[in-house]
Amino acid sequence: MSIVLGPNQYGKAENRVVRICRDTARHEIRDLNVSTSLRGDFAAAHTDGDQSHILPTDTQRNTAFAFAKERGVSSPEDYALTLGRHFLDAASAATGARIEVDEYAWDRIVVDGAGHDHAFVRRGGDTRTSVVTVEEVGDGHRARVVSGIKDLVVLKSTGAEFKGFLRDGYTTLPDADDRILATSLTTRWCYAEAEPPDGGWNATFDAVRSILLETFATTYSRALQESLYAMGSAVLEAHPEIAEITFSAPNKHHFLVDLSPFGIENDGEVFIAADRPYGLIEATVTRDDAR
Amino acid sequence: MSIVLGPNQYGKAENRVVRICRDTARHEIRDLNVSTSLRGDFAAAHTDGDQSHILPTDTQRNTAFAFAKERGVSSPEDYALTLGRHFLDAASAATGARIEVDEYAWDRIVVDGAGHDHAFVRRGGDTRTSVVTVEEVGDGHRARVVSGIKDLVVLKSTGAEFKGFLRDGYTTLPDADDRILATSLTTRWCYAEAEPPDGGWNATFDAVRSILLETFATTYSRALQESLYAMGSAVLEAHPEIAEITFSAPNKHHFLVDLSPFGIENDGEVFIAADRPYGLIEATVTRDDAR
Amino acid sequence: MSIVLGPNQYGKAENRVVRICRDTARHEIRDLNVSTSLRGDFAAAHTDGDQSHILPTDTQRNTAFAFAKERGVSSPEDYALTLGRHFLDAASAATGARIEVDEYAWDRIVVDGAGHDHAFVRRGGDTRTSVVTVEEVGDGHRARVVSGIKDLVVLKSTGAEFKGFLRDGYTTLPDADDRILATSLTTRWCYAEAEPPDGGWNATFDAVRSILLETFATTYSRALQESLYAMGSAVLEAHPEIAEITFSAPNKHHFLVDLSPFGIENDGEVFIAADRPYGLIEATVTRDDAR
Amino acid sequence: MSIVLGPNQYGKAENRVVRICRDTARHEIRDLNVSTSLRGDFAAAHTDGDQSHILPTDTQRNTAFAFAKERGVSSPEDYALTLGRHFLDAASAATGARIEVDEYAWDRIVVDGAGHDHAFVRRGGDTRTSVVTVEEVGDGHRARVVSGIKDLVVLKSTGAEFKGFLRDGYTTLPDADDRILATSLTTRWCYAEAEPPDGGWNATFDAVRSILLETFATTYSRALQESLYAMGSAVLEAHPEIAEITFSAPNKHHFLVDLSPFGIENDGEVFIAADRPYGLIEATVTRDDAR
Repeated sequence: MSIVLGPNQYGKAENRVVRICRDTARHEIRDLNVSTSLRGDFAAAHTDGDQSHILPTDTQRNTAFAFAKERGVSSPEDYALTLGRHFLDAASAATGARIEVDEYAWDRIVVDGAGHDHAFVRRGGDTRTSVVTVEEVGDGHRARVVSGIKDLVVLKSTGAEFKGFLRDGYTTLPDADDRILATSLTTRWCYAEAEPPDGGWNATFDAVRSILLETFATTYSRALQESLYAMGSAVLEAHPEIAEITFSAPNKHHFLVDLSPFGIENDGEVFIAADRPYGLIEATVTRDDAR
Repeated sequence: MSIVLGPNQYGKAENRVVRICRDTARHEIRDLNVSTSLRGDFAAAHTDGDQSHILPTDTQRNTAFAFAKERGVSSPEDYALTLGRHFLDAASAATGARIEVDEYAWDRIVVDGAGHDHAFVRRGGDTRTSVVTVEEVGDGHRARVVSGIKDLVVLKSTGAEFKGFLRDGYTTLPDADDRILATSLTTRWCYAEAEPPDGGWNATFDAVRSILLETFATTYSRALQESLYAMGSAVLEAHPEIAEITFSAPNKHHFLVDLSPFGIENDGEVFIAADRPYGLIEATVTRDDAR
Repeated sequence: MSIVLGPNQYGKAENRVVRICRDTARHEIRDLNVSTSLRGDFAAAHTDGDQSHILPTDTQRNTAFAFAKERGVSSPEDYALTLGRHFLDAASAATGARIEVDEYAWDRIVVDGAGHDHAFVRRGGDTRTSVVTVEEVGDGHRARVVSGIKDLVVLKSTGAEFKGFLRDGYTTLPDADDRILATSLTTRWCYAEAEPPDGGWNATFDAVRSILLETFATTYSRALQESLYAMGSAVLEAHPEIAEITFSAPNKHHFLVDLSPFGIENDGEVFIAADRPYGLIEATVTRDDAR
Repeated sequence: MSIVLGPNQYGKAENRVVRICRDTARHEIRDLNVSTSLRGDFAAAHTDGDQSHILPTDTQRNTAFAFAKERGVSSPEDYALTLGRHFLDAASAATGARIEVDEYAWDRIVVDGAGHDHAFVRRGGDTRTSVVTVEEVGDGHRARVVSGIKDLVVLKSTGAEFKGFLRDGYTTLPDADDRILATSLTTRWCYAEAEPPDGGWNATFDAVRSILLETFATTYSRALQESLYAMGSAVLEAHPEIAEITFSAPNKHHFLVDLSPFGIENDGEVFIAADRPYGLIEATVTRDDAR
């Protein structure tokens, strides 16, 4: 029984690409964190130290920056697709490329009621994500586009309960009729095709984000699981171009503080926000023919 | 020459107090990180293990939560002043209290074009800060209020230069006629009095934040120092109730990427955002009678 | 085409369990970060808000702490297996449990040349990890044990090159005959059986860690890939009970600083340690019948 | 009442300088994080955008790397003193320089029972710190050296109590006869002179670190304050060259978990390590003529 190389990939991670469009006096900014990696037949690099098929990670970095100028960044998804397809051509031993692009949003600074031409303030909050994989298939490529959001922190101060759950000898939790529900949402949705949806990648991103927020807000929640399922279903119903959506949602506990030792009633008004441990709820909502 | 106790203080740090106002169906949220500490004659606790003058940090925590209900949180500054004054009374050995409150902003989730009553999304970006100190003076108290902002990330894609600087044998930096200027601003301003300014603490905070952003945007910058001085001056001019303002501003370098090896011109369009090292510019703008 | 629930799991993450063994005056400490999760038929919780099959994450937390006392923590792996098997019995709808345990190491403080009985200093550096999955199979359970290390930061100041690589139009990297090779290693190895290996889980962990370090040190490296493959092979050769080992290794670049503008030669002596971007090399070393 | 510039300084922060000594086959490594800053008459840069007296932060960075080669790094303190004195000469408008150097420790990887010549593993745990300030005084310089440690995490599993404290209407904490005492210590000590102490900066650092650990271990603690005072006193008694020592010590709470609902006694064996809030104890131990 011999020892062999298994799955492997390599690339350059976290290239902080900032692209300014200054064709007019009204600049645009795209602020990206780009990670690229290649898969394929790279066994010789591992077993014999032979680098002849290895396109260096330094070259991958150079390409990420050069393409930001040459091809532009109309959307993270388009930019990632272009990079992924290029790498499969540039490195003949590669059979797959994975391009991950996070985007940080900036707002124009408001001066006299209007957005400034070239001064920006970073929006903060959640980050837009995208992961594109391109694989060789026959003489061509097959691509897969997954877009997403990370660190979207949302909270409901009422409209959530948790009760009627299974109890065993280690259960002490009482039923809760009214609690704070809060999470820092990470979600990814997979497009059925690697083609821009109607309206384009950017408009679809905005639309999905809005649906997620609205559905979280308006769904009475009997568990975080129920909220996630409602949010995922709403996205799939409104966007036939999306095949599947996945959530990873820490239940950020807000514990009601017991003020009774001080003769103070606390009827859902003062909470301590806890760090750890946290609940962690993960779920996928899909179409019955998608898997 | 004997060994003695020098300056000391103790308290409870980072109490994550979340206060929901639910007097009506339209809830309000204040999300705080509260740190309290006491100074005074606590030598016996250090040298003899005698805790009889020590109000436990656990009690300080309880008080922070109880006061959030009893006294409410109309602003971080008011809440901190109330806590600080209370602790001086509660712990007779204490001669000073320092209360630090960070506040995280939340926006209402927009549903059908309007903000929801009880569902929120965390704004992210910069954090509002406040530090209140209360000291015993004779039979009374003297308080000092310092408000501020941390992690306000701003960027100008043009309108900044850096040239004509001192050169020595270790200087390699060329003059820059047009560069990205970016910083993650931390600033604190000190009020002349511990009384709410006209319009209140909250309105003044919003006004100062706007002035800082606008002045950053509209000031042609020959160095980050010049931008900071202009920002501080604008705040002091508009707000006579503010005695002094201090800045700590990392110069978040965005380096123009050399694309010439690939035959590509890069005229201020593609940058790499660097992490470390960074310039660090610190400055205070004050009034000539303030110190 | 209808919308349905896909894969899902839920649990309590990052329970910071600290277990002191004080049967004798010479205390022992185990300092753990425990995450548990359950998979199974939890569709009703998602689609109907029905919690009757949900064993709360709060109960999972209670159990993690109770078992630390009742069953003890002879090793993270044994503790995790015990928890995983218990949860499948406690929650009848669960068909699988995943238990993740990180352990932080402490050293005894040295007093007069000997380790103290009950005073410890945290070792820092790398963290021991383990992930145990238990699944229902027929009337019984099938378990899988994966142990690992994260954040093991190693560096060679010579004995590493990188040259002869593929070049394209975006390649500017010169060959390197002698460079610093550094990485922050994360590795996981899978045991063929869920039974303690000869010598036990703890001794095997120590042995694998030593092999990894020694092989990294003594392997002349023509690429990080070659070092990883050598490290993985050495582990598999020495430990037949291990079926497979996987690495994720950021190439933490140390760039030689150009001191020639100052008339100073820099022959491999002064480097700048860079943060981002970094190379990221991932590889699995396996047995030819393991997959 | 006019607006004026107050205190200000500028410099380059977090230069990650790695120095390899390779004079023999047995390499040595010093891994530093270096921050430099200058104070003085830099008003024109703030008010008029005049950079003619500004030695760029880029030049400061170059110097930090060049000096690591030219002057070497026998200790962080010596290296910092050399840099600080240089900058006062290089920038005539500067009247003070502040140099901060953190050092990360590496151990040799053990191969066949002996430390390897050029392969290292990062030790982790606490970081050695130093802050040197140099000021112009007349025609010469006056320097001040502050050395320290940050993030030294220590824990006692017994030998600590907390009782007899002040109680008020918000106190719920019961007396504790036996508790875990744990902290992540940050400490800084100031030398009376800016000259290397007997044995040198490195040996003194090691000696102080040992005294701190030993005293923490062997002191029965009636409060963290008492432990800190004992630790500081022990350092000052053993090291007359040290004028003063300051501590910042978060009380990292380990709460005994209530297992009684499950019929389990928990006699100091199972704890939950909490993140926030934490006690924060700060104290200085000094000599009665030092201030």
